[in-house]
Amino acid sequence: MQIKKLVFAAVALSVAAGASAQMKPEDQIKARKAGYAFMSWNMGKIKAQVVDNPASFNKDQVAAAANVIAATANSGMGALYGPGTDKDAGNQKTRVKPEFFKEPDEVRKLAMAFVKEANELQKVAATGDAAAIKAQFGKTGESCKACHDKFRKDE
Amino acid sequence: MQIKKLVFAAVALSVAAGASAQMKPEDQIKARKAGYAFMSWNMGKIKAQVVDNPASFNKDQVAAAANVIAATANSGMGALYGPGTDKDAGNQKTRVKPEFFKEPDEVRKLAMAFVKEANELQKVAATGDAAAIKAQFGKTGESCKACHDKFRKDE
Repeated sequence: MQIKKLVFAAVALSVAAGASAQMKPEDQIKARKAGYAFMSWNMGKIKAQVVDNPASFNKDQVAAAANVIAATANSGMGALYGPGTDKDAGNQKTRVKPEFFKEPDEVRKLAMAFVKEANELQKVAATGDAAAIKAQFGKTGESCKACHDKFRKDE
Repeated sequence: MQIKKLVFAAVALSVAAGASAQMKPEDQIKARKAGYAFMSWNMGKIKAQVVDNPASFNKDQVAAAANVIAATANSGMGALYGPGTDKDAGNQKTRVKPEFFKEPDEVRKLAMAFVKEANELQKVAATGDAAAIKAQFGKTGESCKACHDKFRKDE
């Protein structure tokens, strides 16, 4: 199942297929920024409950947040990096670096690493083991950061 | 499981708890708009594949999109409607109507209806039955629209 998800993610990342091919660049940028922003909220909830304030740990809320992150990771966001999305478009600003579009193998590697960690976070979160979730949350955050460090401009 | 999810959704909607209580109004608005925008992209993918162009139907892509919608529906977005989020805040505009904050019972009813349909969409999408997905996609869209019609301002 993990393997199948990874293969799907790889395919989704390498083919800007389906609906997105017809989306305007600004709509693709808006959608991908929305995905990251909503994951960020959910990562923040997990951090608040397993790192910052463990007394507030709520198993169901953390599992729900991890479900969002895993589902987003597996949603084929690679399709939202089509032609014309390498720079600001319409009213949408993007922080993606030009290198992102020149190093597809590196992008795929980082993306698949993120999908793997997000799937594992979902699995661990379902157990309700706060210590294990904290550890896997850290790994997931690192996989986000690896891509940010390499392919995202500072604000 | 459905019941448990619904109860959790109801609790999440009625309590602006945890991390969100410390979030600034503009950050709450940004996060909720991101959730809706990312769901919209995923609804669009399902529509493209089961309504507009059935020949493009891809079971894995549709199931992945439905997973995002269900996970988002169950993520406790009610916590993002805290004090000060009833109007534009910072650089974030909101289209929520004032009535949203005065009719919590109606909001809860519409939200729980949406969660129910989104969970069912996820279940049906996993089967890969395009006709059944199309029918449940329609019901899910109706449950989105019911809230938009009542509580969202026109653009």
